[in-house]
Amino acid sequence: MQLLPGFRDFYPEDCARRNYILAKWREVARRYGFVEYDGPVLEPMALYEKKSGGELVGQLFDFEDKGKRHVAMRPEMTPTLARMVAARERDFKKPLKWFCVPQFFRYEKQQRGRLREFYQLNCDIIGEASPAADAELIAVTIDMLRALGLTQHDFVVRVSSRHVLVDVFGEKLNLKDEGELTGFFEILDKIDRTDPERSDAALKSFNTSVADIRVWLQQIREQILDPTSYQSGVSAGTHSAQMHELLHNHLRPRGLMEFVDVDFTIVRGLAYYTGVVFEVFDRSKNERALAGGGRYDGLLSLMSDGKVNLPALGFGMGDVVLANLINDTPAAKAQMEAWLAQERACSVYVVIAKEDRRADALALVQSLRDAGHRVDFPLVAGKVGKQFQTAEQLGAKHAVVVGDEWPRIRLKTLASREEIELDPADLLARL
Amino acid sequence: MQLLPGFRDFYPEDCARRNYILAKWREVARRYGFVEYDGPVLEPMALYEKKSGGELVGQLFDFEDKGKRHVAMRPEMTPTLARMVAARERDFKKPLKWFCVPQFFRYEKQQRGRLREFYQLNCDIIGEASPAADAELIAVTIDMLRALGLTQHDFVVRVSSRHVLVDVFGEKLNLKDEGELTGFFEILDKIDRTDPERSDAALKSFNTSVADIRVWLQQIREQILDPTSYQSGVSAGTHSAQMHELLHNHLRPRGLMEFVDVDFTIVRGLAYYTGVVFEVFDRSKNERALAGGGRYDGLLSLMSDGKVNLPALGFGMGDVVLANLINDTPAAKAQMEAWLAQERACSVYVVIAKEDRRADALALVQSLRDAGHRVDFPLVAGKVGKQFQTAEQLGAKHAVVVGDEWPRIRLKTLASREEIELDPADLLARL
Repeated sequence: MQLLPGFRDFYPEDCARRNYILAKWREVARRYGFVEYDGPVLEPMALYEKKSGGELVGQLFDFEDKGKRHVAMRPEMTPTLARMVAARERDFKKPLKWFCVPQFFRYEKQQRGRLREFYQLNCDIIGEASPAADAELIAVTIDMLRALGLTQHDFVVRVSSRHVLVDVFGEKLNLKDEGELTGFFEILDKIDRTDPERSDAALKSFNTSVADIRVWLQQIREQILDPTSYQSGVSAGTHSAQMHELLHNHLRPRGLMEFVDVDFTIVRGLAYYTGVVFEVFDRSKNERALAGGGRYDGLLSLMSDGKVNLPALGFGMGDVVLANLINDTPAAKAQMEAWLAQERACSVYVVIAKEDRRADALALVQSLRDAGHRVDFPLVAGKVGKQFQTAEQLGAKHAVVVGDEWPRIRLKTLASREEIELDPADLLARL
Repeated sequence: MQLLPGFRDFYPEDCARRNYILAKWREVARRYGFVEYDGPVLEPMALYEKKSGGELVGQLFDFEDKGKRHVAMRPEMTPTLARMVAARERDFKKPLKWFCVPQFFRYEKQQRGRLREFYQLNCDIIGEASPAADAELIAVTIDMLRALGLTQHDFVVRVSSRHVLVDVFGEKLNLKDEGELTGFFEILDKIDRTDPERSDAALKSFNTSVADIRVWLQQIREQILDPTSYQSGVSAGTHSAQMHELLHNHLRPRGLMEFVDVDFTIVRGLAYYTGVVFEVFDRSKNERALAGGGRYDGLLSLMSDGKVNLPALGFGMGDVVLANLINDTPAAKAQMEAWLAQERACSVYVVIAKEDRRADALALVQSLRDAGHRVDFPLVAGKVGKQFQTAEQLGAKHAVVVGDEWPRIRLKTLASREEIELDPADLLARL
């Protein structure tokens, strides 16, 4: 009996690696004042059909339950979040800073970095329209990766903005309606991955070329990255000025600019995002995006039939691509291994050297565990040498020998081989 | 758009309560040297059909996936555990002490204490036949509940054993085959919940009565609970002697006897369990069982088509009934509330008293977060009084005021209202 394709068994060593990532995510989210929420793994199918641009609907694990309801295993969190916020919006002070670490299910073709189930950190800020919120979200994204031992040499956050693109190209190319804009953005989205000749052919109807576009993109990029732009009211439009403010007023003071670039070829789901968007890539671009997100001011209203209309922004970061990058980055991997060793290690192994002292040993085990120590001991009689071997295998820091010396015991520090004899009552203070 | 019946939204306050139980489970499992594993939420349907006595098969969320596989959302962990252990059994030193905290899905009628999804702690010991392992498992069960602030006045572990029942009643009632035994056990299982006259009628074919059975059960119970029994080789059979050993040699030295009773009306899934079984109830018996488990020595072999034949035992403890008991037990509830307040509290709220000092405030926020503090601040300009209000609402321990005094700042301890002025560089040492 095999496990299903695209699903994972988490043997203890795998589970510890998963828990490492989840623990770091939770730790950093807490530092930023985000609070955790969660929703059901199973939702009504209609919840996912509602969101416009729902490319995920074709990839669902959906079915009819025993009560004839059309249901689906969750492929993403935003619809659930929208439902929850809409139901109790007034109970919470704005802005909401909420995060969760759900497991998602998507029936996709398996490949490196893509499974049919995965964990995804979601952080969302709801109820704040200021670029300060965009900066807070980008900062927490960066610190998620920094906390995992990744540096500016390992990853970069590419920031873009649909509004800036509309400002620049709407004017330059005289794009008038949603249809023209969408057509153009679809080409732009793929420009880095497409043969330039094909892009040029597609751009002909817009009276422009790949070369032109690259020049314009570079111009606006440099303008936004330059801290001295926009200082004397000279502005290329409010949206690029806002992006400038985001970077230089809100991210630069935090010392996070070296993690950020501006890249207007980042075009995320157009029907969904309304403002600044960003994607995180490893510097070598070997992997898929590590994370992605942005502002989706209209979505809560859409999802709640207009009940709640709050500005909102968020990002998602999956565990699969991230784990690959950690494994490929020696410093990050070393940090993880150190954490895992710590997690795994047993604090005390109680060696029962004389079987008729087992009851005394058990009392000792209980008192150590009650004090919070991680304690193991042989369930059945065994040779003392064998027991020490087990202690070593469990990574025990200390061995406590209960035997001939009773009512005294021996405490051995396994790394240094130091050994002392003491009264059981004094043991706790020694650990 | 509503959530599905029997499923839960976890708003931040609910999520924190869930996390409290999961955190305590993990903490105690670790203390006992159990290591965490996990498996897929979705498994092939056949995995659940394999286990004999599979009453759960009728309650599955099962369906055909897009690849025409008959799959099911997991309703329990043992089949997954058996598959995993069978696949890599030789990689692990025995006994395995594994735990997990999976979410399960069962299409059941909703009622108090029963939902269609729930979390369940599972602890299993694989590869040890000694009653010492049964005791270790019962001890960890007890300590899970003690760690949640529950005492011997709140719950009791009722221990039983199929082997002892066979020894006692097989002889007394001359029960010869599996069919007769099963028929008798089915009556015994319900004896506490059935009108005695109906039980007496059912017991007629066994030539016995409720009154007879209660006398015999009480006799063997007292014999097993008496520490002085079985001392001079006087034995009512190895199985009851083993149970005596479990209690008096392995649980009594740990000081856990006040949490334990012997109750032979506990008859758990017969096709599944092979030795000592136990169930945990609240003392008032208002709730369903809090936990249940026992020895299932034959199951790994059955599930792995004979590939792995190891003695094994385990228990499960769900979060729903447990959460109800915590809420109904003032001391346990108070302990949880204290934990939640701690979890919720922000460490520092940075008050930006002069907006043109925002960049300095952001640098300070970043340095505090880098040091691991939970820090919040106003994303947009606001009155100082309002900012202090927010700090109080977030349960902040400290407020740091960045404003007129710059390059000095003020640190205020919110509970005591104490306030000092200091250099930002000295702040970390003061927190």
